[in-house]
Amino acid sequence: MGETAQQRRVRPVILSGGSGTRLWPLSRLGRPKQFVALRPGEETMLQQALRRVADAALFDPPVIVASRDHADAIEAQCAAIGAAPSLIVEPAARNTAAAIALAAMAAAPDEILLVMPSDHAIADTAAFRAALEAALPHAAAGWLVTLGIWPDRAETGYGYIERGDRLDANVYRVAAFAEKPDAATAAAFVASQRYEWNAGIFIMRAGSCVEALQRHAPDIADAVRASLADTDAANAGPDPARFGLTPSRSFDKAVMEKAEKVAVVPVDMGWSDIGSWEAVHALGPRDAADNALQGDVVAPGSNGCLIRSDGPTVVALGVSDLVIVATERAVLIVPRGQSQRVKEAIDALEARRR
Amino acid sequence: MGETAQQRRVRPVILSGGSGTRLWPLSRLGRPKQFVALRPGEETMLQQALRRVADAALFDPPVIVASRDHADAIEAQCAAIGAAPSLIVEPAARNTAAAIALAAMAAAPDEILLVMPSDHAIADTAAFRAALEAALPHAAAGWLVTLGIWPDRAETGYGYIERGDRLDANVYRVAAFAEKPDAATAAAFVASQRYEWNAGIFIMRAGSCVEALQRHAPDIADAVRASLADTDAANAGPDPARFGLTPSRSFDKAVMEKAEKVAVVPVDMGWSDIGSWEAVHALGPRDAADNALQGDVVAPGSNGCLIRSDGPTVVALGVSDLVIVATERAVLIVPRGQSQRVKEAIDALEARRR
Repeated sequence: MGETAQQRRVRPVILSGGSGTRLWPLSRLGRPKQFVALRPGEETMLQQALRRVADAALFDPPVIVASRDHADAIEAQCAAIGAAPSLIVEPAARNTAAAIALAAMAAAPDEILLVMPSDHAIADTAAFRAALEAALPHAAAGWLVTLGIWPDRAETGYGYIERGDRLDANVYRVAAFAEKPDAATAAAFVASQRYEWNAGIFIMRAGSCVEALQRHAPDIADAVRASLADTDAANAGPDPARFGLTPSRSFDKAVMEKAEKVAVVPVDMGWSDIGSWEAVHALGPRDAADNALQGDVVAPGSNGCLIRSDGPTVVALGVSDLVIVATERAVLIVPRGQSQRVKEAIDALEARRR
Repeated sequence: MGETAQQRRVRPVILSGGSGTRLWPLSRLGRPKQFVALRPGEETMLQQALRRVADAALFDPPVIVASRDHADAIEAQCAAIGAAPSLIVEPAARNTAAAIALAAMAAAPDEILLVMPSDHAIADTAAFRAALEAALPHAAAGWLVTLGIWPDRAETGYGYIERGDRLDANVYRVAAFAEKPDAATAAAFVASQRYEWNAGIFIMRAGSCVEALQRHAPDIADAVRASLADTDAANAGPDPARFGLTPSRSFDKAVMEKAEKVAVVPVDMGWSDIGSWEAVHALGPRDAADNALQGDVVAPGSNGCLIRSDGPTVVALGVSDLVIVATERAVLIVPRGQSQRVKEAIDALEARRR
């Protein structure tokens, strides 16, 4: 099927709805993770997502689904790299099923959508591209295809996908989706070699997507369709009142876990959702003392640290296993492995402000 | 002698020649320690030194001896607190004997000088004042008087003064000056209760000071006098070429260790030379977890830390015994007890710049 895959075109749909603060102080409420660079001075994660689908031989201009609050930031970041995506503004955050429905209903039914988050890292673009091309013929044939990330550890923070029957060289029917497992279950999943991580990347015909939404999540499909029928003329987007009535569910829950023709393409592509500072440390590069030093940083005698500056010069002398992140506004210091405590920091700051 | 002491007037001479970087990144080459505040938002150490001698009932307007590089900073800091000191600009740094000679030769012989560094902390002003008043009659009688700081630990970083015969209620002839001792010697000094720290604070008649310089350090006295005879008209200060020829020695080495009539007034006045970040931590205030938190700082679950910000918000989560200092330009993180390694930091930054 390789030759025909080359002919097919793909419409990237980049979801930019995130508003997390797990990479505080770099990310914050007004500037979620997709708008920051994985390493100082690099392009932002959103820009890298756009680069990933910039090849005009395969990809049509992308669509970005985002909240109104972020529209200006997105336009600035796109302009900076010469990208000209369409922007679909969500009047409210209603999770991924609604966001994907907006994009799918705006597309022609035969367009093949590549839906992906805006704030993940993919180091091996060739592997990503190969997986996409493996998925295309199945998407064209009506399958809802997801990429399954080969797990390199028994991570409990992700959902898993269980492979079923083989459909093609590297394409499998999905046997089941599994929620975030406990540690023992995660270890069993990884040991079985039949499970991959669910990264929220979907390849499917727009028409197949809309049909599946209509069948498995008619409440969402109907509400989104109504919001588009009654478009807000002033802002040329979905009607806020109607869109606001859309139930908030993930596309996995609403559609993928229920549909029949669901396939997975396993792939090892250097993927990370960069869900913590520890993930940034793991992505490296790291020096001989296991430090990931990013930006204007020196660390004589230090080891095992992630030290990043997007502003001031940072000097860490003889410290071990710390996460240190500095911006012009704020500095975080926390032991590596405890950066999920960043929520505590934000709460403490909020409490002091009150 | 108490009543007459009240009548005597004192001319403060504040030495602002320091250029240390031990409190980096707060202090740096262009902004030595005397120009920064011990705690964010407080007056600088120089301003506090001026406050200490602001009582017009006892003190004449002070003289500040400083390098030309710092003249503007000094004028701004004085203006901010309404102080109007005279400024003697040293064309070059030639250590304390030359700096004190400049001030002593500019004064009338009968003026009593109080010479003190610009970058030390004195928490107990009343004790300071009492020690000064104990010293005054002896200074008036031709003694070179120094204040001796009661040692509260066997510090190896300071010189010590050994008390000799008692001259008055709390005034002693100096038996000897001791260089910075090793740890065993320091412990013996403290155990003997006959030694105090040498803080570089001197009380003496200007005339006695000049005579002692002339006798014990004629090379310095002659060079400084020549620089003043040939005053640089453009800058109304000592002639740079002649002053540059002045030998560089401390007033202790050049005069105090050699003169005959040398006295010490022991005093416990909450003194610190703030020679390290550990000293700042020790000066507190500290919270129940032994943290000294200064500026826009929160530290849930942290203990034993000095955390100071003069700029960004600093959040330290669950860390122990660290010194963390943040300015808009730079951030230092180092284990408490190792902040002398700050020199390494500066070297590392210099090396990278090259």
